[in-house]
Amino acid sequence: MILCDIGNTHFFFFEEGRGSYKHKADAFDISSISETVYFISVNHYWEKRLEHEENWINLRECVDFSAFYESMGIDRIACCMAAENALIIDAGSAITVDRMEQAHHRGGYIYPGFAALEKCYKSISPRLGVSFNFDIDLAIIPKNTRDALSYGALAPLVCSIRELSQDSSVIITGGDAEKLHPFVPHALIDHELVFKGIKKIIEGIA
Amino acid sequence: MILCDIGNTHFFFFEEGRGSYKHKADAFDISSISETVYFISVNHYWEKRLEHEENWINLRECVDFSAFYESMGIDRIACCMAAENALIIDAGSAITVDRMEQAHHRGGYIYPGFAALEKCYKSISPRLGVSFNFDIDLAIIPKNTRDALSYGALAPLVCSIRELSQDSSVIITGGDAEKLHPFVPHALIDHELVFKGIKKIIEGIA
Repeated sequence: MILCDIGNTHFFFFEEGRGSYKHKADAFDISSISETVYFISVNHYWEKRLEHEENWINLRECVDFSAFYESMGIDRIACCMAAENALIIDAGSAITVDRMEQAHHRGGYIYPGFAALEKCYKSISPRLGVSFNFDIDLAIIPKNTRDALSYGALAPLVCSIRELSQDSSVIITGGDAEKLHPFVPHALIDHELVFKGIKKIIEGIA
Repeated sequence: MILCDIGNTHFFFFEEGRGSYKHKADAFDISSISETVYFISVNHYWEKRLEHEENWINLRECVDFSAFYESMGIDRIACCMAAENALIIDAGSAITVDRMEQAHHRGGYIYPGFAALEKCYKSISPRLGVSFNFDIDLAIIPKNTRDALSYGALAPLVCSIRELSQDSSVIITGGDAEKLHPFVPHALIDHELVFKGIKKIIEGIA
């Protein structure tokens, strides 16, 4: 059994024993996999294209969106389903922050991803076009432009994570998990969180 | 005596008795003003162009950048100079947050402006292209996309403002001051803050 999370740019796979691996979406060859693949997808093109592939099982119909909200990304829902009591942060092209309490979704918010924020600053003024410094100390208010932008991207987010997490555990997943983690040191990094959620969706069918 | 803050898109003027008013930078006619104008500028084109106008006095040389930092915008410095003990927020195309203690600049950071953040979310995914809801209650974690984005733009910023302001006063200026103010209700709005700073720069010359 292969699990798959189809994003806008990549197919993320998970196989027991083999672990996780990924393929680029635009160059992906369906015929390279003959085993059954249980997948979730936020990629409309691929979701449509896989409709008539018998070994690709779309889990969308098995997800109770009403327990979250109708327009919430299915990958974000899967990550939330993997935790019963936690603040769940998926740091990718967007950074989603969701609060789960006793397996119920209390709500969540969406912050721009770090790459999008770097572009955002640059769009305001070329003078603000810098790559963030992820080695800053948030206890010190900055006195130079690069740190002022890095702090602006990180400190408000970290403040809000601290406020929302309170005593609950914090789990970080996503491509930028390692960049954010030093600022939320008590958090756990779990790059297989989405697959744990996919497993729960499958268990719900059985 | 006319005071002027030249931004990238507008000339902001202040005259005692007349108050503040603005003109678009791209259509501005220098010859419309014969009185002496004391100005600061972040607009390199206009700063250069006004070099040989005898009645336009550039205050750049009169500002002690070393008390702040070399690359800090002169308009941001002027706003800081207007307050001795406060957290100063200039909510414009970027949102700057600066801490002044006993007339010393402790540091500050730069957050994207709300319009830039709306574009930033849209650039991540067309699904995230919404106009913010400024009527949200930050005590409730959102359960729909528009509020999740609005909360993501506002709650981290407001959390960090609360953390940095502690017991000191908070002053908000800039075009989006009224949008931010309901979330920082103890703050004062002062749209003439930059001109108060310009007056202090002029007093420093005398």
